[in-house]
Parts: sequence; structure tokens; C-alpha cells
Amino acid sequence: MSDEALVIFTPSGKRGRFAVGTPVLQAARALGVDLDSVCGGRGICSKCQITPGYGDFSKHGVTVAPDALSDWNAVEERYKSKRGLIEGRRLGCQAKVMGDVVIDVPPESQVHKQVIRKRAEARQITLDPAVRLHYIEVVEPDMHEPSGDLERLSDALRDQWDIARVTCAFPVLAILQTALRKGEWRVTVALHQSEDSETPRILHVWPGLYEGGIYGMAVDLGSTTIAGHLCDLRTGDVLTSSGLMNPQIRFGEDLMSRVSYSMMNENGAAEMTAAVRDGMNRLFGQVADEAGIDRNLILDAVFVCNPVMHHLFLGIDPYELGQAPFALATSNALRLRARDLGLDVHPAARAYLLPCIAGHVGADAAAVALSEAPEKSAELLLVVDVGTNAEILLGNTEKVLACSSPTGPAFEGAQISSGQRAAPGAIERVEIDPATKVPRFRVIGCDLWSDDPGFAEATAASGITGICGSGIIEMVAEMRMAGLVDGPGLIGSPDQTGSDRIFQDGRTWSYLVHDASASGGPKITVTNRDIREIQMAKAALYSGARLLMDKFGVDKVDRIVLAGAFGAHISPKHAMVLGMIPDAPLDKVTSAGNAAGTGARIALLNRRSRAEIEDTVRRIHKIETAIEPRFQEHFVNASHIPNAVEPFPVLSGLVTLPDVIFNTGGGDGEGGGRRRRRG
Amino acid sequence: MSDEALVIFTPSGKRGRFAVGTPVLQAARALGVDLDSVCGGRGICSKCQITPGYGDFSKHGVTVAPDALSDWNAVEERYKSKRGLIEGRRLGCQAKVMGDVVIDVPPESQVHKQVIRKRAEARQITLDPAVRLHYIEVVEPDMHEPSGDLERLSDALRDQWDIARVTCAFPVLAILQTALRKGEWRVTVALHQSEDSETPRILHVWPGLYEGGIYGMAVDLGSTTIAGHLCDLRTGDVLTSSGLMNPQIRFGEDLMSRVSYSMMNENGAAEMTAAVRDGMNRLFGQVADEAGIDRNLILDAVFVCNPVMHHLFLGIDPYELGQAPFALATSNALRLRARDLGLDVHPAARAYLLPCIAGHVGADAAAVALSEAPEKSAELLLVVDVGTNAEILLGNTEKVLACSSPTGPAFEGAQISSGQRAAPGAIERVEIDPATKVPRFRVIGCDLWSDDPGFAEATAASGITGICGSGIIEMVAEMRMAGLVDGPGLIGSPDQTGSDRIFQDGRTWSYLVHDASASGGPKITVTNRDIREIQMAKAALYSGARLLMDKFGVDKVDRIVLAGAFGAHISPKHAMVLGMIPDAPLDKVTSAGNAAGTGARIALLNRRSRAEIEDTVRRIHKIETAIEPRFQEHFVNASHIPNAVEPFPVLSGLVTLPDVIFNTGGGDGEGGGRRRRRG
Repeated sequence: MSDEALVIFTPSGKRGRFAVGTPVLQAARALGVDLDSVCGGRGICSKCQITPGYGDFSKHGVTVAPDALSDWNAVEERYKSKRGLIEGRRLGCQAKVMGDVVIDVPPESQVHKQVIRKRAEARQITLDPAVRLHYIEVVEPDMHEPSGDLERLSDALRDQWDIARVTCAFPVLAILQTALRKGEWRVTVALHQSEDSETPRILHVWPGLYEGGIYGMAVDLGSTTIAGHLCDLRTGDVLTSSGLMNPQIRFGEDLMSRVSYSMMNENGAAEMTAAVRDGMNRLFGQVADEAGIDRNLILDAVFVCNPVMHHLFLGIDPYELGQAPFALATSNALRLRARDLGLDVHPAARAYLLPCIAGHVGADAAAVALSEAPEKSAELLLVVDVGTNAEILLGNTEKVLACSSPTGPAFEGAQISSGQRAAPGAIERVEIDPATKVPRFRVIGCDLWSDDPGFAEATAASGITGICGSGIIEMVAEMRMAGLVDGPGLIGSPDQTGSDRIFQDGRTWSYLVHDASASGGPKITVTNRDIREIQMAKAALYSGARLLMDKFGVDKVDRIVLAGAFGAHISPKHAMVLGMIPDAPLDKVTSAGNAAGTGARIALLNRRSRAEIEDTVRRIHKIETAIEPRFQEHFVNASHIPNAVEPFPVLSGLVTLPDVIFNTGGGDGEGGGRRRRRG
Repeated sequence: MSDEALVIFTPSGKRGRFAVGTPVLQAARALGVDLDSVCGGRGICSKCQITPGYGDFSKHGVTVAPDALSDWNAVEERYKSKRGLIEGRRLGCQAKVMGDVVIDVPPESQVHKQVIRKRAEARQITLDPAVRLHYIEVVEPDMHEPSGDLERLSDALRDQWDIARVTCAFPVLAILQTALRKGEWRVTVALHQSEDSETPRILHVWPGLYEGGIYGMAVDLGSTTIAGHLCDLRTGDVLTSSGLMNPQIRFGEDLMSRVSYSMMNENGAAEMTAAVRDGMNRLFGQVADEAGIDRNLILDAVFVCNPVMHHLFLGIDPYELGQAPFALATSNALRLRARDLGLDVHPAARAYLLPCIAGHVGADAAAVALSEAPEKSAELLLVVDVGTNAEILLGNTEKVLACSSPTGPAFEGAQISSGQRAAPGAIERVEIDPATKVPRFRVIGCDLWSDDPGFAEATAASGITGICGSGIIEMVAEMRMAGLVDGPGLIGSPDQTGSDRIFQDGRTWSYLVHDASASGGPKITVTNRDIREIQMAKAALYSGARLLMDKFGVDKVDRIVLAGAFGAHISPKHAMVLGMIPDAPLDKVTSAGNAAGTGARIALLNRRSRAEIEDTVRRIHKIETAIEPRFQEHFVNASHIPNAVEPFPVLSGLVTLPDVIFNTGGGDGEGGGRRRRRG
């Protein structure tokens, strides 16, 4: 055997020659192989487990002898007998290289492991949280060299982990001395290392090797709901996802009514701040309970939210956001103590808020950008986060544009006569027979269609209670396809449509979807007013997207991502029939689910992504729809179903919309007023 | 007139040639002349006032023509008419150089003005506080370039004050937007600029030009009293100095009894933390009230204290300080939010704690070092901070040594039979006639001696109530000089001393100082037990100093500074007769008053002094008396009055101590036990 041996690591493929006797962990570090260790190679944390391969590796051109690694030493034996080791595994810090060897680093031994995301087109998350654990051995105090325990602990971090300078969160001072003595001068510290120039900060100290968990929360703070993902910062796993209603709802359903509340009431903003922080604390408590963890082990939290929520959560009066020029108090990302936000978590826990893009385009849009990464896309990507305010991104590697558009709450089933929130009993899918004009539908909580046998029994418990947001989109699109609604958005009379489900409803016509009144249930209908609401909402959304396309200098996009919980349920075909989104091949329209929440999770699990999204946001071109004259023009055209002027060639190849016009010249009734103009 | 003119600034003597038309402020900045400006040269803050000199300046070789500066412009005229200007003054930002000119910068226009200190040997304080005001004009928000108000304010600081990067204290976010709009985009910010690498931090924002005060507190947190100096951070002036009893007194008179309290009581440390913070808040309220300022304008605070107070104030259990190796939780300086210390001041106010030197030598000793600067002294300087724990520094430019020595409370009048705190009625000065052995004395609150006519009337109100700390030192020294006490510390009998004021008191003799029992007052005596207490205390102090001299390799010092409020009242001659301090020429023994408090004030008013003292403390050699074998030997020798072995040659030249020995071989009574040994 020569004095040196070849070590090849998989899956990285990194290789190098090392003196016989070099521990595998040391070889891995020398080569920059991603092999974890909390204890710094002392054989106690087991994070550096590796799997040596033996025999012929023709691919690598080596044969590994059975004695390529040193025999099990006492430390490894003790570890295995006390804690157990998977068959074939060794401790990388104990096993020494004795001959040429191939070493596999299993995923759980990698520091920067990939966190699984379900969607193929989504960027992967590399685990690199801001808070990590470090085990250290601290020099005992010496009267001849008096220095504080903290100072010797800092020296240990410098000497054992190459962390040159640390600061200490205030609450740590009170527990430091006890932890050091209880751990006999061996402790595990939770260290917060920001990606910016901040000095690393000690958040907590445990006696000895701490093998429990440390956690982070990724929160999407919406106007209606607050959704949180509790993540294990060691593995990147989501332990629990949970949500609750934003308690601010009692001050107003939508953003502008909350801004108004703060204008009209002396302590209105403070009341709303207290309400949202209270709700946030309940959510934190709820997820901690569900996951069975101590909420004091939550050491980091990332928040994304629209600008009004952002300001109210921070304790800033959103007054300025209610009027031009919609000035944010601060637009940059914020790095705070969680305690400053009133959060009852670990007293030294940190909080990070993503940057806001503009006064109407918040940190939630930034989070969507982080999740969907338009700036990394070769294809021209349109990302639409559908909510009461649609936030829209358009871009590719060349540039990214952003705007928001006030869609209102219609897409959430609000202000729709039979509308309701997405809940069991709500109609979510619809098909209308173009010949008979009879609808069949499905409700949330039941997989059967309404004309399937057993549907009545299966829905007896929930009842059929209304139409949810995605249901109303399908409904209106189906009504248009079935010739019940014309391009300008008017419901035809029974004569014009040939349907006895159409009935007079004041000065306009309505469509009967389902009548459960015999069994005490509601009569579910679509009124012309409902159609108008959907027209306004979809026109706002489309004209925002169209404006960005103008600014980009294009008239079509390559790919469309629908973000937002609601976006996940929208049928691309129906959205396109409505003219809610630009014309595109249906297979190029996908849903990203709660992309804002995902963005929050990325920022939580990968600290470098924070600097990255801050940089991206700085480079995003913000378009303020309110001051763009073309927005109004696009809006008017987009009020038509699908559009008064745009051709939608892909859609035309898929469906032929009946060429009907129901306005007979006598005005189109009360629903036709407001903002819509004849195209 | 040429295109350029010569500008000479006094008192700096800096000079340079500038294009005709250059504003004086701009010329000053170009030359690095210390000329203040809060408004950045906009003619509204008046901080840049200068006095041009006209006529012949042969010293500078120039003649200044009457038109050497531009005529008064509208801004200057308006300022003068509205606010007034001292005759001969101009605004440096408005007056332009038109010809050769000599410009005097009056002290109040200097940024880094000298703060007056009374003592000639003391270092001067150059005003350079961590918190300063900056007036800025912020760009208004623009929908086309959406950025937060804070970000545009940061840009203004960068563009107008060359402050490249700032962070913002959390509470500022809530007031920022209102201040900007109320000030019509002109605001004054209070900016905290640490001397270390911390990013400058905005602590507060006022609309427009803020012309009110900003304040800082320098606090000496002692075991017995908390003393605070409220300083104006713009001028360096002390507005109010005030103090109160440390409310922790109820948990124990001295440090070790408080450490014991924390050991014996479950929440003992927390109770004491709450008590000291409560006292601190009362002090802050008291000084703010006395100065008539809003405590919310206190933006910075500096604290010095011994290690036990340091830990209790920070909320750290002082347990470890009660036992070897006396490990501090942290020894470095601390930069905190004042709110973390429970201080009810401005919500974003900062707090700075000086570093501790060792487990027994605290931040108060560091403050004494900052005030007295032994490391800058060419003479070998001994600094003794006299208190229940004496903290001792010995050094010169070569090196500085430090130790502490447990003197106990005798120097404060405690554990002395007729002892009392320094208060009206307490005997503070004594002379004993060597022939008659009759004392004459003075009491606090009266300038007459006890044998002056009118003394009885003058002291009728206060009475003669006891002996304070400095009084007992003089008393024992005078008793030694009058032959009432011998070198080993024994009081002689009436026969041995020839005084009928000596009376039997158990197994030893006592000395009657004053008998007010006829008028219902106390009988003031000195017992042999009192002598023993003073011997122990002074031996502890002397042996600490002597140990440092050993370590330094010297047997005399050049200069002695007595620090501490008590040190201010000690008579150097009597202290030397006692052998409390090393032998030295009397004119080389001076008092520094409350040097710890002064050190706190320096750290408050000059941010660079913080880095300086941190560096000094790192380089100070710490001596732990408890583990030095020679300490015991010095202690035994120093129990003798003045000393069993050391010659005290200077003292011998001044006074001849009676060569008496009162011990007749039968033991020296109950007071002679404890630590003392025959020399």
C-alpha cells in the first residue's frame, strides 16, 4: 500500500489523493464535499455518516479493497452499540482512509441537501438555513487569564468552526453560565448567520450535544387567511402546515376597507396590528401543538404579505397606501427580532420579511418571484397570483416586470349572489350541455358529478350550498360556451337562449343552476350582476397582464403560472374562455399552488435566497397600473368575454364560442353600467 | 483680486487657497476644519457660525480687506432678523470667500469641542457622541420609481452626509411617514454611529429642523448608590447629576451578601434584577424631572459597575462570581438596546456597558482607567478606587496592572461602633492634641471646628451623630500620632497613654471622642474593635497595591490618585500614617472624585473612547489577589500601623510616630484575633 490513497466521493464525483490515515470527514472537507457534522468530528453527533463502497468500480477506475477503511475504533463501536448505525454505514470522522476507496454521502449526511418540491418545473431548494447548530468545547475559566464565559465560547467558535466574530442575543446571557457548567464545558449553540454583513448571532445555548429540533416558520400573511408552514431547520421538512382566518376580517373584508378603518378610527391601525399579531401567535401555537413541539424552539420566521398587511403587522399605519403615490414606509427586506413583532416564540428568534416590490405589489409578490423565478426562465413567463389583488409578474432572463391589479373579491366567491368560500357543498366544477343548457356539476367534498348515480346521497351531509371562486369561473365560461351569455356579458332571455332555466330577475335574466329549496336548501342561480362582477375581476387581471406585455413589447407569452391557493383550482381552458389570462397553449398554463408560501419557505430554508430575491426585486421594473392610460383601454376590451379586440388564436382552435348578441337595443339593464364600455 | 484667495482658520491654523466665491463652510470641510453643521449648509441651523477677522494679521502674513467675505445674502439676513446673531458673526455656509481672510471658529461652532473638566491632570474630553442629529431633505415618493420612504431617507443620508449605509431602529418605522409629511420631506434624524463596525442606526425622526435637545445618561451603578449624570449630547454639558440608594440594599449590604441571597433564594437574582432596574428607572425619572426634560429624549446611556452589579443589572445570576474562579458570564463591553435593560427611555435608545477587567475588577474599574488613563502616564501612577471593594490600577505607558481587594465596608463607616454614613452631623475631620490627647473635630454641614466659638449652636440642628468613613481614617491616624494607639493597633490604658478619655470597654480600652448623652445625643467613642476593622480594611487595600508594585518590579510609585466619592474626602497625610496607601510625597497624592462616573461620562460623550478603553482593558494585566501567596504576607505586614516592615521614608520626614507598645504580654484582647498576626 502506498502512502497515499485515492478517495472518490459520490454523488458529487469529487476525488483527491490523501495520506493514508486521513479521516474521511477531513478528506471530504478538503475537497469541499458536502458532508455534515455538528460535533466537529468528535464521533458523537453521527451527522457525518457515509457508506463506503467495496469491490470493482470500473466507472471510477478503482477497485476498493475490504480494508480500504480503518477498522472500527472504540468511538464508532460505542456509537453503534448505543445509538445504532444503518448496515454498511460508518462515521466519517472516525473511519480513516487506508486505501483507494469510493465513499457515498447519503442525502441525510449532506448539509446542503435538496428539499423536495413536487413540481417538476419548480426550482429546487438547497437547505442552507440562517440558523444552524454547532457543537463546541469551551475552555474552562482560569483566574490567571480572566475572561468571560461568552468570550471563551466565541473563541471556541472561531477555533473549532472558523466563525471569526459572533455576537450574542441578549436572552442568551442569562442562560450561558448554567449551560456551560451543566454540559461540562461542552455546549451546542444555535447560531444565526445572516447572508448579509450582519455579525453571526448566538440565539441559544444547550448543555452538551443537543439532539433535539430547531424550527422555523414560513408564513403567508394574507388579507383573508394566515397560512404557516412549520419547518424543521435541520432537514428542511415541513412538519405542519396550518392556517387561520386573519382576525382583521372584523375591521373590513378587503384591504381598502381596512385602510379606511385606520383612517376613520383614532387607534384603528393599532387595533388591527394587535389583531393580526394575536392571530399570528395563535397560528404559531396551533402549528407547534399540531407538530408536538415547544414553540420556544422556533428560532426563525419568514413572512410574506401584501403591503397593507406588511405595514399593519409591523405596526405602521397603512394610511399612505390608501392614496397615490402609495408610498411604503419601507420597501426593503427587514431583519428583525421576532419579539419586535410581538411573537411568542424563542425570545431571541429572528424574523425576516421579504422586500416589497411597490406600494401595491408586496412581499407576497416577491415571494412568488422567489418561488417561480421568472428572472431565471428562458421562456417568457407570466405569473399571476390570483387573490383580491392580483399580483402579476412577466419576465425572463432579460428582465422582469411587475404590477398589481385590483380584481376585487369576486374570484373568492364574494359579491356573487350564490357565491361562497371554497368549502364542502360548494360547486367547484361545471359543465353545461350546449344543446339542453342543463348543467352538471361537482361540489367540494364529493367526487361524483351531479348526474352520477348516488350524488344526492353523497352530498346529503354537506348539501349543495353555493358556488366557490373557481366554480363561478367555470360557470360563466360554460354559460358563454353554451350560448347563455353573449360576448358583452349579457344573459339571454329564455327565447334568445332556448333554455327554461333562464328566468326574469328584476330588469335582467338569471340562470338557475340548482334548486334545493324543496329540501330546505338554497336556490343556486347566476344573475347578470354576477356575470358583471366576474367581468370586472377578470378584466382587471387580464389588463394588468396585457399592460406588462405592452411594456415588454410582446403580444404573447410562452408560459403562464397561476399562483395562489385559488389559482390551483382554476381550469385553464375556462380561464381562457373568460379571457382572464392571455391566450396560450393549455399545457403551458400550470398552477403553482401557494407560490407565495413556497417563496417564504425558500427564504426560510435557504438564507442566500434572501439576498437573491432582494437583488431580483431591486431589478424588477414596477408598473403602476393606476397611472397607465392603456390600462383603461385594455380593461374596457377585456370586459368582453373573452375580449373585444384580441384574437385568442389558441383558444379559437379549441372551442368555438357561439356568436350571440342579446342586447336588443333597449339598454342592457342595471348590470351594464359601471365601468364597462361597448367595445 | 485674483481668482483664488487664502483662507486661514483659527484656532486650528489650517489654511488653504480657494476659488473666490467658495462658501466658508465648504472651505472648512475641504481643510478638515472642525466646523459644525446640522442642516448641511442650508442656512437654517446656525451651527456653522464663524467670526471673520479684518485688518492686519502679521502673524499669518495677511491683511484682510473689509470685503474679504461676500455681502450678507437673503438667507443670512433672514436668519439674523428672526433668530439673531452675535455681533461679528456670520453663517459659514452662506458667507463666501471673496479675498484673503482669517476665520475664527468659536468653540460652540466646533463639532468636536472640548468638554471642560476641572482637574488639571485629567484628560480632556473631546465631544464626539454616538448619537448625533442630521438634517436632511428627502426625495418625495414617485409612483414611477416606487421605493419606501425609509429607502429615500437613507439615500438622503448617503448623498447629503456621506453615510453610506444605515439601519433603522424598529420603533422609527411607525413614526417615519408622519414625520416626513409633517416636515414636508425635511426631517432631522438622530443617528447612532457606533465606533465599531455596526451599521449606523436611525433612532428617531423629527419633522423639519429639530432644535430641541437629545440627551444621554452616564451611570455609575454601585452596590450602595446609583449615581447618574444627565448630559446634553449636543454640548457635552452635564445638566443634572443625581443619585439614589441602590434598592438592592434590602437584599444585603455588601456584594457577597447579595450573591448569597441569590444562592439561597430561588428567584433571588431575578428579584435583585427587578429591584436595580426599578431603581435605575426612578433615577432616570428623577434626573429628567430635575433637568425638566422629557425622558423619551434620552437616546444613549453608559453604565459602569462592579461585576456583581453588572450581572444583576443584565439579568444574569451572579452565582459564579461568588466562588473561584470568579468567572464572568461576559467580560467584553456590551452594546444593547436600553429597552433590554428595562429602561423607560426612548424606545430605540442604546445602552453601552464598559468591559469588565476580571471577575473582581469590574466595568467601574475600567471606567476609572478611562478617566485616569494610567496607560498614557509617563509617571508610574497608582489609582485606588476606594469602596467596599477597592479596585486598584498601577501603570504607566509601559503597562498597566489591575487587581481588586476586599476592603469591606469599614471605610464607609459601617461595622464601626460610632460609624455612620457621610451625612450632616457626622465627624469628618479630627485633630488630637499630642500633649492633652483631647480631640477637636469638624462635622459635615458646619465649617467650624468643635473648639471654635459658636460650634455648639451651629451644630445644634444636626447634632453630632457619629463618625463617617473619612473621619474614622483621620481618627485612627490621629490616635496613632497622639500615642493613643500603638503600631500593632492596640489602644493603651489611661496609665499607658496618660489620657482620662480612655476607658475600659470589656477586655480592651476605648477612647471617648464626644459625649452628647447629656443632651440626649450619642456617646461617640472609638473601640479597639473599630481600630481592628480599619486595620483589616487598610491592610487589604495596601497589600493589593503592594502586590501590583511587586508585579511591576518597583517599590515606590510616582503618583497616587484616590478615586471614589469617599476618596475625595480622605486626607492624604492621614491615609499615609495609617499605611493605607504607599509612601509618596503628599503633593503627589490627589483625589479624582468619582472617577468611575467620569469614565462613564467620557464613554458617553466620546464614542471613540469606547474602543479605546476596550483595547486598554484587553491589554491590562489582571492580578487575582486570592491566589497570590505574597498577598497574605503583605496583608499581615500592612495590619501594622503604618506597616510592620516597610519604611515609609517620606512619611517619616513629615511626622514622627510615638514609639509605643501597649501589649504587656497578656494577649491583646478580643479584637486581636481574626486575620492579624504579629509582624
